[in-house]
Formats: sequence, C-alpha cells, structure tokens
Amino acid sequence: MKNESLFSLTYGMYAIGVTDGMKPSACIVNTVTQAANQPNMLTISMNRRNYSYECIRRNGLFTVSVLSEDTSGAVIGALGFNSGRNGNKLDNIRYKMLREGVPVIKENSCCWFLCKAVDSMETPTHTVFLAEILAGSDKTVGKPMTYEYYHRVIKGNAPKSAPTYQEPTPDLSGNDGESFICRVCRYVYDDPITPFEELPEDWVCPICGAPKSAFQRKGNTK
Amino acid sequence: MKNESLFSLTYGMYAIGVTDGMKPSACIVNTVTQAANQPNMLTISMNRRNYSYECIRRNGLFTVSVLSEDTSGAVIGALGFNSGRNGNKLDNIRYKMLREGVPVIKENSCCWFLCKAVDSMETPTHTVFLAEILAGSDKTVGKPMTYEYYHRVIKGNAPKSAPTYQEPTPDLSGNDGESFICRVCRYVYDDPITPFEELPEDWVCPICGAPKSAFQRKGNTK
Repeated sequence: MKNESLFSLTYGMYAIGVTDGMKPSACIVNTVTQAANQPNMLTISMNRRNYSYECIRRNGLFTVSVLSEDTSGAVIGALGFNSGRNGNKLDNIRYKMLREGVPVIKENSCCWFLCKAVDSMETPTHTVFLAEILAGSDKTVGKPMTYEYYHRVIKGNAPKSAPTYQEPTPDLSGNDGESFICRVCRYVYDDPITPFEELPEDWVCPICGAPKSAFQRKGNTK
Repeated sequence: MKNESLFSLTYGMYAIGVTDGMKPSACIVNTVTQAANQPNMLTISMNRRNYSYECIRRNGLFTVSVLSEDTSGAVIGALGFNSGRNGNKLDNIRYKMLREGVPVIKENSCCWFLCKAVDSMETPTHTVFLAEILAGSDKTVGKPMTYEYYHRVIKGNAPKSAPTYQEPTPDLSGNDGESFICRVCRYVYDDPITPFEELPEDWVCPICGAPKSAFQRKGNTK
C-alpha cells in the first residue's frame, strides 16, 4: 500500500478552541466527524503532544469553528503551526469568548459548536475524543473549506502532529530551480514575477509565519 | 443551534465491505477519518442496527473503498438504502474478494484499505470503531467523491441510519407541483422534459431503486 492513498480521504478544516483555565487557545484540525445524531455527537483525533490535547483532558470543553474558503492561510498557519505553550496564539486572531470560557474563531468561519468530551480511545500517538455537542451558532454562512481546497488553492499542508500527516516523498519534478519550500509547513513559493531572492528580508511565510531563512530551494534535500 | 449547521462538516463517500462469515456484503458511510499515522489507523461510525455493524463486531475485519465522482448513484443506492439481511446486496455490484474474505468495491472507486477493528466507543445509537489499516491498494485513481458532490450533483441524501442524518424540514419552496420526492431516499425527480406521471410503470428511483409508487408529490406531507 502507498501511504498517499490516504490523501483520498476527504476532510474539512476546523479551528478547535480550548482553554487551560487561564487563557484561551486554539489549534487547527481536519479530523472532525459526526458520530451520532440523537444526541448530536462528534469525534476529533488529537496528538497527545499538542497543547490543545492537554486543555481538553483538563476540563473536557472545546469548540469547533468550521473554517470557510474565505479564512486566510495566515490564520490557519498561526493556529496550526505554532504551540499554545509559547505565548498567546490568539493575539492577532478575531475570536469570541463563550460564557463557558472557551473561544470560537471568527475569522470568516461558517459556524461553531460547543462540545464536551465524554469518552476517548487511544492510538499510540493520538487520542480520539468522543464529544457531545452542547450548543452551536444559529446560522451558517459561507462555503466550508475542505482540506483539498486548503492544499490546492492556499497551498497549505498538514503539520507533523496531524493524524493525516505523511512523510513527503522528495519531489524533484517540475523544479526549475526558482521554487522555494518552507521547511516548517512545506508551502511552496513559486511566484513568477518576484524571484524568492528579491523578497524583502522581513518577508514571512504566508502560511506559517516562518522567516525567509526557513525556506530552501525546492528539490534540494540538504 | 440549528441542526443544519452540521451539514457544514465535510465528508467523503465510502463503501464498507464486510462478511458475515458466509457471504460478503457492503454498505455506504461518509464518516471515515484517519486517527493516527504510526501506524495508520482510522475511525468509522456505524449504526448498531446496521447489518454491517454486526459483521464487524463478529470478526473485526472490514474494507474501505473510496468512491470516486464516477461511481454511479445507483451503486450508492443499492449499498446504502438496502440491508444485507435481505438478500445479496452485491448481486449487481462489481467487487473483488480479498484473500481475507472481505470484499472491496470496484465501481470506479479510487483505492481501498483493509482494516481490523481494535477498539470502539459507544454512543446511544452508533458505535465508533477504531481500526488499524493492515493493507491497501497500490495505486489511487480518479477524483474522490465528497458528500457535498453526492448531495449537489447526484442529488442523493443520507439514509436514516447515518450518524449525519437530520430530520428534513418540510420544503415547500419552489414547488411547482411537478416535482416528486422518493420517500425512501428523498431523491427529487423534476425532469423538465418527461413529467413524472409519464414515466413507465417499471421505472425505479435512480438512487435507491424504490418503485414509482414510493414517490409522492413534493410538498405533499401525506
């Protein structure tokens, strides 16, 4: 079996809002799935090294904000490629605190759900939480972003902690020597007008915010 | 919260192949999600009244065939709106038996995985299985079908046993009196050329195979 086959499974893009009891935080997952409808329940899979995992383990409550196609890659990068342990991930993110103390993300998200974990199953690396949906937004706006859209249009990838992450096979095809790849999130810069070298030194990766120095020429494995 | 918000979660379309030990069978689910990558594991949610549920409980093995946009609605209907208890659902379906005794569906599917359930969690109606992926096809072909595509293009709906099913709100909008809806799968017939009444008596629903008598005029709740 080729691991790439797993890329044919279909996912959406979601921000998971959590709290450690002191400050709110959030992360990005693509593995939100409805598990039952009476009552409404869902599952998410989360890496046990993630800060959001610790928060859910601590108090059980979390939110799911459904990202739309209008949610920017920078928002996904800020929440998906940084850890809530290192400062406040929500500093530059629009969000609303629910009275239950967990945040919902307002960056063009379609709708949100407030969830309470009621059970879990362990894999060697990730925990699958089963949660009851306690409440949600009254309206749904915009078109939900699929992971396929995020990958194809926004040119984003899954972080290494995601259950769907697969070690990339070296891609030397179509490498004209002018494409640069971010070592953090694998975003590929190949703008035909401005060569990578001519970008200003304070330019950062539009997906994960990594500095210019985090990029390497595509196809160069060193 | 409006239950319709749950429709903004993104899913694919999958055939789950099972065996009761005597004969192979299969059903359709949209809730397949990768749960871990070392080893590769996935979760599926299944109604405990489903025949396929009993089969997985009995021997643990099942397959996931990823349906493509070229998989016909009739295949989805045959597997999704009938029970394996009543005859052989695979009679008119192209499939291949794996040596492990479970079938993979060859109706334009993109790829397949052989899975073994290793754990489960219970909701009041559905069971979430955690399964290890033991093997899979070596190549992936075609474009995976999303549930959104199935609903928008093929005009199919979820069966009542699906974890994502929601009781439809009566839809009287745009009812010109010439649209007929299937009471089994809610497929809407509104062909502008051939009125429903003029269809031959042996015509069947293109999604679930129900007879003409299973249709009622849209907007008529009796």
